[in-house]
Amino acid sequence: MTTSSATSGFFYPRTATGRSSIIPNPPWFYSGDLLTIEYRTDPARVAELLPAPLGLAEEDPGAVALIWADWQSCSSSREELLDPVRSQYKEAFVVVRCSYQGQTYSRCVYIWVDKDFAIARGMHQGYPKKLGSMWQTRPHPFAQGAPQIGAGAAFGATLAAGDRRLADAVLTLREPSETNGFVNGHPMAHHRIYPDIAGQGDAYSELIASAGASFEGGQAWTGDVDLRLYDSPTEELASLEVDEVIGGYYRQVGVVWNGGTSLERLV
Amino acid sequence: MTTSSATSGFFYPRTATGRSSIIPNPPWFYSGDLLTIEYRTDPARVAELLPAPLGLAEEDPGAVALIWADWQSCSSSREELLDPVRSQYKEAFVVVRCSYQGQTYSRCVYIWVDKDFAIARGMHQGYPKKLGSMWQTRPHPFAQGAPQIGAGAAFGATLAAGDRRLADAVLTLREPSETNGFVNGHPMAHHRIYPDIAGQGDAYSELIASAGASFEGGQAWTGDVDLRLYDSPTEELASLEVDEVIGGYYRQVGVVWNGGTSLERLV
Amino acid sequence: MTTSSATSGFFYPRTATGRSSIIPNPPWFYSGDLLTIEYRTDPARVAELLPAPLGLAEEDPGAVALIWADWQSCSSSREELLDPVRSQYKEAFVVVRCSYQGQTYSRCVYIWVDKDFAIARGMHQGYPKKLGSMWQTRPHPFAQGAPQIGAGAAFGATLAAGDRRLADAVLTLREPSETNGFVNGHPMAHHRIYPDIAGQGDAYSELIASAGASFEGGQAWTGDVDLRLYDSPTEELASLEVDEVIGGYYRQVGVVWNGGTSLERLV
Amino acid sequence: MTTSSATSGFFYPRTATGRSSIIPNPPWFYSGDLLTIEYRTDPARVAELLPAPLGLAEEDPGAVALIWADWQSCSSSREELLDPVRSQYKEAFVVVRCSYQGQTYSRCVYIWVDKDFAIARGMHQGYPKKLGSMWQTRPHPFAQGAPQIGAGAAFGATLAAGDRRLADAVLTLREPSETNGFVNGHPMAHHRIYPDIAGQGDAYSELIASAGASFEGGQAWTGDVDLRLYDSPTEELASLEVDEVIGGYYRQVGVVWNGGTSLERLV
Repeated sequence: MTTSSATSGFFYPRTATGRSSIIPNPPWFYSGDLLTIEYRTDPARVAELLPAPLGLAEEDPGAVALIWADWQSCSSSREELLDPVRSQYKEAFVVVRCSYQGQTYSRCVYIWVDKDFAIARGMHQGYPKKLGSMWQTRPHPFAQGAPQIGAGAAFGATLAAGDRRLADAVLTLREPSETNGFVNGHPMAHHRIYPDIAGQGDAYSELIASAGASFEGGQAWTGDVDLRLYDSPTEELASLEVDEVIGGYYRQVGVVWNGGTSLERLV
Repeated sequence: MTTSSATSGFFYPRTATGRSSIIPNPPWFYSGDLLTIEYRTDPARVAELLPAPLGLAEEDPGAVALIWADWQSCSSSREELLDPVRSQYKEAFVVVRCSYQGQTYSRCVYIWVDKDFAIARGMHQGYPKKLGSMWQTRPHPFAQGAPQIGAGAAFGATLAAGDRRLADAVLTLREPSETNGFVNGHPMAHHRIYPDIAGQGDAYSELIASAGASFEGGQAWTGDVDLRLYDSPTEELASLEVDEVIGGYYRQVGVVWNGGTSLERLV
Repeated sequence: MTTSSATSGFFYPRTATGRSSIIPNPPWFYSGDLLTIEYRTDPARVAELLPAPLGLAEEDPGAVALIWADWQSCSSSREELLDPVRSQYKEAFVVVRCSYQGQTYSRCVYIWVDKDFAIARGMHQGYPKKLGSMWQTRPHPFAQGAPQIGAGAAFGATLAAGDRRLADAVLTLREPSETNGFVNGHPMAHHRIYPDIAGQGDAYSELIASAGASFEGGQAWTGDVDLRLYDSPTEELASLEVDEVIGGYYRQVGVVWNGGTSLERLV
Repeated sequence: MTTSSATSGFFYPRTATGRSSIIPNPPWFYSGDLLTIEYRTDPARVAELLPAPLGLAEEDPGAVALIWADWQSCSSSREELLDPVRSQYKEAFVVVRCSYQGQTYSRCVYIWVDKDFAIARGMHQGYPKKLGSMWQTRPHPFAQGAPQIGAGAAFGATLAAGDRRLADAVLTLREPSETNGFVNGHPMAHHRIYPDIAGQGDAYSELIASAGASFEGGQAWTGDVDLRLYDSPTEELASLEVDEVIGGYYRQVGVVWNGGTSLERLV
């Protein structure tokens, strides 16, 4: 038998060069705009999304953040920035908080992206990524067809998947804000899972934590929110009904992600 | 026979309300970023793209501009900005100059866009729009995954159609520039055509001129250009071979378009 | 001034070779599967979509056909069939009937497609085409993941545009049918329009008629219909409310289209 | 601390109902058309893609199959068939053979699909799926715009990813064939991997085997092949150079997949 090879590559497909890997080695670098809407839903709906060993956060356990992000991202080589089909992507995601061993974590319970490299990064980080179609208004220095970040600026955001609109929102900025919301402000506690190939539960399940390795952000703004969620046979976002809007936020940020830590190996 | 209706709408489909029209009434408002590369090709290749009554421009007749644009646009209602699937689009287009009755005009000879409303606006304005996939690096205030407009910043731009790459370019900014190029600087002279339904030439053909009704622009930058064109069975961009690069430019702009004028009715 | 060229190409962009034209010369050849749902709406809603000189059909003037089609198409060269990104497309369209000079015509009032060549063919033929996302169940010789045309087979069909679901339907076949419906059975009477570049109404408007140059069809089937229409800020399909379902039909067909005739030049 | 929930769902995201899972429980059912091209490349290029504990197949170790598939698929509920955006997808994939403990297996080394549920099924089955754009000529009962399976029929197939064409092929059928090729004829031996969240190699790696739980196929045809591979900065398909074409095949099939077996837990 021929000796087998030492294939390389951070993730699949692994080859002699590693060049084909759907994602490069971390660290990963991101510049983008975040539109965040926070609201309260029935905490029972949040609890249903927290498998063991997680529980509801102690304070404000029904708080939900629905976040749209318009990203440009790259690896250390920065080569993706010059072939931007490989660096630009959009996403919308839903974050709740949870408790693990007395600590509060954020947790992404639903997320949609529009590129495969983003799905693969999500696999690694424990974000439950599906494909969707997300759009959010962009600010621009010239006002003919764009708002500029400041009082009165209106930003729209929409989310669709499976050819159905799942959510749309309008955020009208009112004033600078000391925060960009609180729901997505903790380290993320995510399950990474791999179902058993023979159908016996999971072959692998691990609770991991991760956070940005570094972060920069511009002035956050807060404003008035108009939010609508729509039902779909394959999605449960609309089950997180909007009982009360907490706030809406807009912020431009730069982030580096460089791995996380294992909290607990479950399988 | 029942009396027929007075349907309304700027373009098709026309209905009682006009709400379904693929495009709203002008004026149309645009904010966006332009990445322009100018080069010289054999003037014979340009002449082939200038039907009567147009001729080659007198000076520098082989000059070509290949322009990428990343737009957000809307009508007077600005409602499209809040449902941005209806306002954001990208395009790449090829502009040459031509002469008509002693005047120099710009003329778009090839163009690809990624939304249907952009195709319909092009029908009206005489831009020969096809669908394509265009990407260009975006500047952002945070540098983790983005350049910032200034010396040394590198912007990539790519164009594909029919699942084939047609062009890619890298522009590395060097210094501020007094111009954003000269090829796309004149009013546009475009043919609008409608082939005869019975196959006898054209049922309608008109040479029209149009330009922006108003224009604002930031500081233009110029830089070094790396440009590659690729062949395709259904496209002729690569026939406009790059004999000599003239320059590359980057500029953020705001534009209003509000109709044009008929130069000559040909059919 | 250099002499201008004789550019060629059926439609834009015209070049020395004509190779870049978004669509080739007719005749155009089509093979595909049609899923048709016919229903009655308020005839006033149909009348609103019939501009002069058209009026309502005398019999059953509120009849509407909502048709999904899954096509493979080509020019006489058949070269598109070997690069099928250029030959396959899907569409959904709404047909009513109308009266012109005592004759009954069919008329497409709304239509969505998923390729640019289909949009351009629609421009020529007077179909008011927008981009959409259409899906319809495909029959297949093996039943693991597909119905086979016959009693009990269920076919789903969906339509979305602008990231919103506009319609979905299920047709469950019951028995062979002598017809494939009657609403789309006449020559099409379509307006072809070009708004004036200076904003003064239309520069060109013509009422044309066309029909298939030849047609072949398999056994039509009829069945039970479940149909839902959804509202959208940019579409008026849902205004054609379903008062009564007439029938549903499934048929595989082959069609040739080779031009039409002018009924009346309006502008 | 509130008791955590028992979430359900075959794969992520897990919820109280399991309805949101990106993929349902197996078994999964498929009906589709396969266009297969087999050729020989340098066995060293194949060996590079076989990590431990796999080795080259003993016979014809440089044999490669490049396969396009046009699928409709569903779960046991068959509900996806009536919302076909959830059941139809296309893929192109590259299969080689390998040896493990004296047995010959097939192994998918590269694969591109166009839906997220297909990516997730690939994660489970160990297929290294990326997003791509695949097209293959469809047969149809009416010949206006389609071939019919039989002598002389020509089928085109194309593959693109990242806005670059990676492969295109034309298969012209010549005669019925006893086989549909041999490279993809063994059980699949795939690595399933999960990189460690802290960057220390893999947290999970398992070699699994799987095959169809049941299979039906129509008459296979063989024919003449024209195949071209194109380079890309992010793909290595073109490194599997075509030294000699073995054959081309076309077959319609129905398949059920219902899990596999673990060969070896590596991490």
